[in-house]
Amino acid sequence: MADPRDIAVLVGSIRRDSLSRKLARAFIALAPPTLALEIVEIAALPLYNADLEAAEVPAPWGHFRDRMRRAEAVLFVTPEYNRSVPAPLKNAIDVGSRPSGKSVFLRKPAGIISCSPGALGAFGANHHLRQSLVYLDMATLQQPEAYIGGVDKLIDAQGAIANPTTREFATKYMAAFAEWIQRVAPR
Amino acid sequence: MADPRDIAVLVGSIRRDSLSRKLARAFIALAPPTLALEIVEIAALPLYNADLEAAEVPAPWGHFRDRMRRAEAVLFVTPEYNRSVPAPLKNAIDVGSRPSGKSVFLRKPAGIISCSPGALGAFGANHHLRQSLVYLDMATLQQPEAYIGGVDKLIDAQGAIANPTTREFATKYMAAFAEWIQRVAPR
Amino acid sequence: MADPRDIAVLVGSIRRDSLSRKLARAFIALAPPTLALEIVEIAALPLYNADLEAAEVPAPWGHFRDRMRRAEAVLFVTPEYNRSVPAPLKNAIDVGSRPSGKSVFLRKPAGIISCSPGALGAFGANHHLRQSLVYLDMATLQQPEAYIGGVDKLIDAQGAIANPTTREFATKYMAAFAEWIQRVAPR
Amino acid sequence: MADPRDIAVLVGSIRRDSLSRKLARAFIALAPPTLALEIVEIAALPLYNADLEAAEVPAPWGHFRDRMRRAEAVLFVTPEYNRSVPAPLKNAIDVGSRPSGKSVFLRKPAGIISCSPGALGAFGANHHLRQSLVYLDMATLQQPEAYIGGVDKLIDAQGAIANPTTREFATKYMAAFAEWIQRVAPR
Repeated sequence: MADPRDIAVLVGSIRRDSLSRKLARAFIALAPPTLALEIVEIAALPLYNADLEAAEVPAPWGHFRDRMRRAEAVLFVTPEYNRSVPAPLKNAIDVGSRPSGKSVFLRKPAGIISCSPGALGAFGANHHLRQSLVYLDMATLQQPEAYIGGVDKLIDAQGAIANPTTREFATKYMAAFAEWIQRVAPR
Repeated sequence: MADPRDIAVLVGSIRRDSLSRKLARAFIALAPPTLALEIVEIAALPLYNADLEAAEVPAPWGHFRDRMRRAEAVLFVTPEYNRSVPAPLKNAIDVGSRPSGKSVFLRKPAGIISCSPGALGAFGANHHLRQSLVYLDMATLQQPEAYIGGVDKLIDAQGAIANPTTREFATKYMAAFAEWIQRVAPR
Repeated sequence: MADPRDIAVLVGSIRRDSLSRKLARAFIALAPPTLALEIVEIAALPLYNADLEAAEVPAPWGHFRDRMRRAEAVLFVTPEYNRSVPAPLKNAIDVGSRPSGKSVFLRKPAGIISCSPGALGAFGANHHLRQSLVYLDMATLQQPEAYIGGVDKLIDAQGAIANPTTREFATKYMAAFAEWIQRVAPR
Repeated sequence: MADPRDIAVLVGSIRRDSLSRKLARAFIALAPPTLALEIVEIAALPLYNADLEAAEVPAPWGHFRDRMRRAEAVLFVTPEYNRSVPAPLKNAIDVGSRPSGKSVFLRKPAGIISCSPGALGAFGANHHLRQSLVYLDMATLQQPEAYIGGVDKLIDAQGAIANPTTREFATKYMAAFAEWIQRVAPR
């Protein structure tokens, strides 16, 4: 059997125990064996500033870019801050997309899972992120859409999705994501 | 005559000599005397992380929040990164809007000027920002919309807007912004 | 006491017994006496086609435009079709905004209530509509945002909002809308 | 050689001689021979109303749905009305997507070309349409993005794109669209 494919997971909140991180882990646990998913950390990335490209770039930018360059696809798991993408995740996107012509995202398949404690499931962040992925030329999974509401009550003490319906949805989502990757970037 | 009103200007790019900073200065120079506009720096703000609210918050967050709290209105001048709001500006919004119940933006009038070297004038960033301002309850100037294209050729050596049509537009914009502030937050 | 202000209500679905129409009526019933709200029908408007402006315009366009011209503000109550504004409502906006220079919406205050049977509350339609209202120069109420989920279970046999929390929210919303109108378009 | 693939082209404006129709024709003329593109008319579709699904549906709905069901992919060419998708095009989407479970768009590849006489190239319509296509599960070409400004000066008396740079872009766009269709829906 072929090696599983290397998928980078970017989590929108950089809180240590953020709900979106827990949700990301719970989804990862339900992925098919064809995918090897790893959360890539973004908390240490200095704010994007093009002036810093001129000399030696900040070390965290270099590490992040190197790691992301190896990834074959990207899964975004994100809350919503002020009806849009949280700054730490937008920063990872801005850092990874530069300098011009060296984007680490270019032509890689993507999936988006957005979440909130409330009912709306971070719809606003989800679609703002989609607009950025157009520019980055990332073929993005359309269906199923994943707007996960009530995320504060979703994860049990073992880190699994407590609700059977949502667990089933997550399993289906990860299968669809794997299939999408194979469809648009076959190996 | 009454003192001019204190207006904070947030510039979306943190490059030292960014085009949006130059554009912001050029617009500021054309404002009516009822407005006292000042660029508030956002480059030093650590990425928003709710964990940091628990103890003593990072000093740059404190300074930024104190300064912004005094402002009576906010003018955003921003480029577009990846078809959305640049991370440094989104970060300033996320930092200033927290902790819950202490937003420095609450109920303050806002204006948005977006710019790009290309033709599109950062339309995507402009409207993503507008979506955040709904959540922040900032009454936002609707017309004139300000999508400034070709910004790399717009500012002359003295920092003024070279093109008479755009200079006239900028004058009109700043007058409309002053009128909007007086309309929704009269003094 | 002054006459109440004339507020046009545009309902996004043209089904006879649409949930959004019921919701609109329930909100109208909770409005303060300073507002006189009336649903303005949009079902009979032919699709917008600029060619038809040249000769005698379709009679339904004329009636709609005349009625809307008298309104002092507009309340939109809408479901979401395909993650955006339903065609009948977008058509009413397109018809009412033309011909150039004769928009019936110009500089009128607006409010938006979006609804869905599911949890998301038509967030996508709500914000797409907001983007149009920027162009139309309608000062739009920012807070409270109104994303009404579970609308299929919300209205009782008498047409009232069954859920006390939502009824209270609706009362608060209508008061805020009345206050917003008075704030941006005082009489 | 295999038969060319049947691609439906939906034009956002229903004016007889609309600029977007002219632009659509000019792009069609530059398509590779693997694609057979045909403009499918949407002007006669009554406004979407779910009540009409109960009995015999309006004949134009039936014809449109039948024609679209045969299409293997869809190319949208659209202007912007009020910073969003024109009502006639949104109506075609709403009609074609219903009734539930019978969408004519489901899982078909899509491309979007937006245009305006001004500089902005209908960016707002382009991305609002993209949000609908997520729901419709249409894999949408990301790059090249096509925001065609100055469209009123673009088409010559023979209906071709006068400007060599834009003509070259259009050729490249149609090749990329053909390649995208083959990538996500190989035959």
